[in-house]
This record gives sequence, structure tokens and C-alpha cells, in this order.
Amino acid sequence: MNIEKTIEWIKTDNLKGVSRMIDQTLLPYEYKKIDIKTTDEMYNAIKTMIVRGAPAIGIAGAHGVILAAIESINESDFKNSILKKANYINSSRPTAVNLSWAIKKQLEIVEKSNETKEKIIELLIKNAIKLENEDIEINKKIGEYGSAIIPKGATILTHCNAGALATVGYGTALGVVRSAFEKDSTIKVFADETRPRQQGARLTTYELIRDGINTTLITDGMGAYFMKKNMIDVVVTGADRIALNGDSANKIGTYMVAIAAKYHNIPFYIAAPKSTIDPSIKTGEEITIELRDKKEVTEINEKPICIDEVNVINPGFDVTCASLITGIITEYGIFKPQELYKIFE
Amino acid sequence: MNIEKTIEWIKTDNLKGVSRMIDQTLLPYEYKKIDIKTTDEMYNAIKTMIVRGAPAIGIAGAHGVILAAIESINESDFKNSILKKANYINSSRPTAVNLSWAIKKQLEIVEKSNETKEKIIELLIKNAIKLENEDIEINKKIGEYGSAIIPKGATILTHCNAGALATVGYGTALGVVRSAFEKDSTIKVFADETRPRQQGARLTTYELIRDGINTTLITDGMGAYFMKKNMIDVVVTGADRIALNGDSANKIGTYMVAIAAKYHNIPFYIAAPKSTIDPSIKTGEEITIELRDKKEVTEINEKPICIDEVNVINPGFDVTCASLITGIITEYGIFKPQELYKIFE
Repeated sequence: MNIEKTIEWIKTDNLKGVSRMIDQTLLPYEYKKIDIKTTDEMYNAIKTMIVRGAPAIGIAGAHGVILAAIESINESDFKNSILKKANYINSSRPTAVNLSWAIKKQLEIVEKSNETKEKIIELLIKNAIKLENEDIEINKKIGEYGSAIIPKGATILTHCNAGALATVGYGTALGVVRSAFEKDSTIKVFADETRPRQQGARLTTYELIRDGINTTLITDGMGAYFMKKNMIDVVVTGADRIALNGDSANKIGTYMVAIAAKYHNIPFYIAAPKSTIDPSIKTGEEITIELRDKKEVTEINEKPICIDEVNVINPGFDVTCASLITGIITEYGIFKPQELYKIFE
Repeated sequence: MNIEKTIEWIKTDNLKGVSRMIDQTLLPYEYKKIDIKTTDEMYNAIKTMIVRGAPAIGIAGAHGVILAAIESINESDFKNSILKKANYINSSRPTAVNLSWAIKKQLEIVEKSNETKEKIIELLIKNAIKLENEDIEINKKIGEYGSAIIPKGATILTHCNAGALATVGYGTALGVVRSAFEKDSTIKVFADETRPRQQGARLTTYELIRDGINTTLITDGMGAYFMKKNMIDVVVTGADRIALNGDSANKIGTYMVAIAAKYHNIPFYIAAPKSTIDPSIKTGEEITIELRDKKEVTEINEKPICIDEVNVINPGFDVTCASLITGIITEYGIFKPQELYKIFE
């Protein structure tokens, strides 16, 4: 299968290039790629969710460090200049650990290398492309392991978009769906709309229907209704940061779905690469939850849905307790939350 | 307190008149009243949710029977003509029992009366106005009983709109809020947006903020996040039909909120008049759930939020099991679900 990359480094010469990405704020109305050429543009692309999804913003971070190096080529303190710019990009979104993970991977190259500036840029580009390709391979492994937990003819509920668009390609939660679909074309997906940003309505239904997968859009309040009617067999979502005990931060609304799944004895799985697991934190209590702009809640398609005077709190993520999670599907196999630490052994 | 009626019968003479109602499809952008003059217009007004909310559509049904009688004045089989038109109006929405309850109250007058056609119309008008005024009185009693379960300085989560706009005035769930607010102005409300029709965003925040009550809008997936953070003290919603065992149908999404409340040991109350309780059904399994138009999910403010090809199932309501309900607040006091039958004794 030849997979088109959601985000990729495009070389213009050995020492120059751009980060080319699908502008996800325009989907599904318009499919357009844009070229990110500076660290400032990269900060904004991540912040405004032109690129989103934990693995995809990891790659964006890796590209950002290349751009930081290119911009720093004439700086006397080349390495320190890169570090500052990388930290700036890293501050664009706090919750998904993949961003800081990938930036850290790139900065290790910068720090350890005794090569010329030019050579360092070449190494950063090489590593970023390696991370891109690894991401797709990892997702295919997640898909392969995960497909084993999808019963024949099952209906899978998913929240937000952990698909090809959230990664370089293939997807994590939707990688599981794709892999299951390759073996059994009768599976179905129920996609939560995922307010406020509607990634489920805009992105998940778009990419699954394009692949010929039977997909039903529901609003975020409907999941439990269909669970009670025995119309959902399993829930699979992605994650943005997973604590060592298995507590998993994911798009706001995931926690309610997980509670409803538990209440109906429906298995609830997280699908995510090892890079989403943050071994530095013991529980979900330590995960910083991003608070986002009020307008994401009060406006849809740039039109208000309520009066101006209303208060809003807009957390971008919530944390699903390990006790609600049946298993975490990774490229190294499926782990029970309480055994997740073994992935680092 | 002088309450402006959401819906009221306006006499043009003793035997003529109109049902004047706030057009709730225009709120909060535009406040406009419209006059419903025929049974066909009334069917459409209920169906398209110009008037919505179980108690309010009950009154709409009562007005509809007056219009049916006015339209039937020259019919040889006057009573049968009214019955047919009333049944037509009753078929506009299946879930809320208040509609059929109020229509039945009016039809009893028609059936039992040996008076002239003109006198019957007068009696129907008199009874409809009585039902309007009783609705406000009932809601004030619900508010008075319900305010006792609101702790000082509490934050109340509500779903959909069970407010002045869902009734003739004052509201059921929001009647509890209003009554609590009269005693303690430090209470706060978190209002679920309530997709697909966004009654929480459009109507609940509108009517509460207009009354000076501190109101925060959240999306339907956020409730559990705030419960976990101990930011919600109690949940109060309305209902559209309550079975004799306490199972309660209410706006889609209520069931997920109730499950999340149970998981966090937060009390969950239903506020509804006795007329919402349907003694003819034993459990929620028997409640017909209305399936509504796909476009309510796929379009917001007449703009699509996803690709056309998507499947949609759009249930208008869900049923919250009695075991998740702490109490049902009525005009006769607060009942535990398992003791609800006593309201008919």
C-alpha cells in the first residue's frame, strides 16, 4: 500500500526545504497542502491546528527543529539558537507528549554532534524523514496487533480523529480500523462528532468513507444510547499522553465515552505508539491539560451559536483513568494498563 | 413575579383566536413571536421545534384542539372532525407524553359535553388558559421543592433546555435553578451545548444570563471532566416521559451525563410535572424514541460540518435508567424513582 503522507519534509536542496502538510482546518470542504517555511509558521500551524494529532505534531516538531537550524545558520551560537527556537515550537501545545519527544530526538543530534552546521542540518533532515517512515510502520504494527481485538462484523466507536490525518499515515485508532477492515469488510465505525473542533465529523468520516469503510456520524451525547442498544462492540481511541500507570490523556470527551463503555461492559482500548507514553509521569494527575480559546465553543463555521455574554471553559483534553481502559495497543503489542511499564524494559 | 408566557392563547373574540408563541428556532439571534392559526401550522410548529420542551408542546397540543374545533365548526360530525385533527397534531412528536396528555384533557371536554359547538369552543379555550396558568404554578412548586437539594454556592450541571422556554414560564429544571438563585445568588450553572439542536447553547444560556445567573457553556463531552475536578455539585435535567418505575426519557445525551454523575457519586435529579409521568408504561423500554432528520447532525446554521456520504442515526432522546436517578422533583414533592408510583395514590 502506497500511503500519501499527511506531513512530510520536502527537500529543495541538501540544506533547504519545507514542511509540507495537509491544512486540516480546511477539511472536509477543501483539500489543500501548505508549505511551512519558518519556525514562526510552524508554531502557528501547530497552535491553530493546521496540523493536529499527537503523532503528526511530533513530526511537525521534528521539522521545526530543521527549520530552526536553517534559520540559525549564521548565528554565532548555532546550537543555542536552535534550542531556543525548538523550545518556542514546543510551547505551542502542552498536552501531546509526541511533540516534545520528537523535538528532543532532534536536539540530541544537535547536542551530540561535532559536525559542521551544514552536516547537522543534513542529519536533522535525515532523522526527520526516518521518523516519518517509522511512524507509518509503527501504525501498521499497531493496526496488526489491534485488529485481533475487533470481533467479526463488529461496530467500533471512536472519538476525535486518530487516523491517517493525525499521523504521517494509516493512523493509530483508525489504523486498527483499517487493519480490521482489510480482513473483514463488514466492520462498521461510529464516529463521535467531537465538539468543539469536530475532528470526528470533519476528519474521521472523511478519511474512512474515502477508504470505503461503513461510517456513521453521531453526536458526542449519543454513544451511551447506542451502547445500551448493543450497537457498539468495542471502543478504540488514540491518545496524546499516557502516564506510566496507563492513565491516558486524549481529546476532551474521551473520558465520558470510557465511563459509558465501562457501564455497559464494552471493551475500551487506546491505540498509540510508544512515543505517546511518558515514562516521566506516574499518573494522569501530572498531565497538563491545554485550555483553548472560548470561540471554539461559541462559534461554528465562524457563526455564533449562543449569546456573547456566556462564560466558557474549553479544556482540549481529558484524562481517562487506567481502570476504565481494557488495553493499550502499541507497536510492541497490547498492554494492560498496569503492565504498561514493561514496554520500557 | 410577572412571567411572560412562552406560549399563550390570544383571543380575537369569544370563538376565535391564535396560539402565540416565541419562535425558538430563531433564538438567541432573534426574539420573535408568531401566531399559529391552523392545525396544519400547529403540526409544523411542533415538528420543526418552533415550540419545544415537553410542557410547552403540551400547551401547544391544547391550543391545537381549539384550532381543530374552530376549523370543524361547519362539519356535520363536529366531534369526530376534532378528534381526527387532534390525532394528527398528536402524531407530530412521539416521545414527550405531555403532548398527548394535554390533547386528551381537551378531548375529554369535547366527548363529555352536550353543549353547542360554540360553547364547546369556549370551554376548550377556558381549559387551555387554565392549563397555561397551572403550568407556571406547577413549575414554581417544582422550583420550591427542588431548591432544597441545591447546596449553598453549588454549581448545577444541566442538559438541553428545561427552562422558561420549554414551558409556559419559569421552567422545570431551570425552575429549580431560579428558585435556588432567589435564595442564594452565588449558585452557578454549567450548561451542556446539547447537540444536535444546541438547545443548551442557544436557549439555556440565553434565558439564564438574561436573569443574571452565572452560566458557563460547555460541550456535551466535557461534563465528566468537570465532575472529576469537583466542579459540579449536582445535575438537574427535565424529562419528556417518565415510566412508572422512574426510567426517564429526556433529550439525547442525558443518559451519558447520568452515567458520568453516578461514576463520580454526584446526585442526578429529574425535574418534571406529574403530567410527564406516564402511568401506562412500566419501564423505559416501552418509550418510543423519535428518530429525527439527518441534517440536524450534519449541518449547523445551514452549513455542512462533514461530507455528504456519511450515515447518520439521530435519536432525539435517550432513556436514563431509574437506578441512575437520585430523585424526581415534581409539584407534589421529590420522589425516589422506586416510590414514584405513590404520586398516583
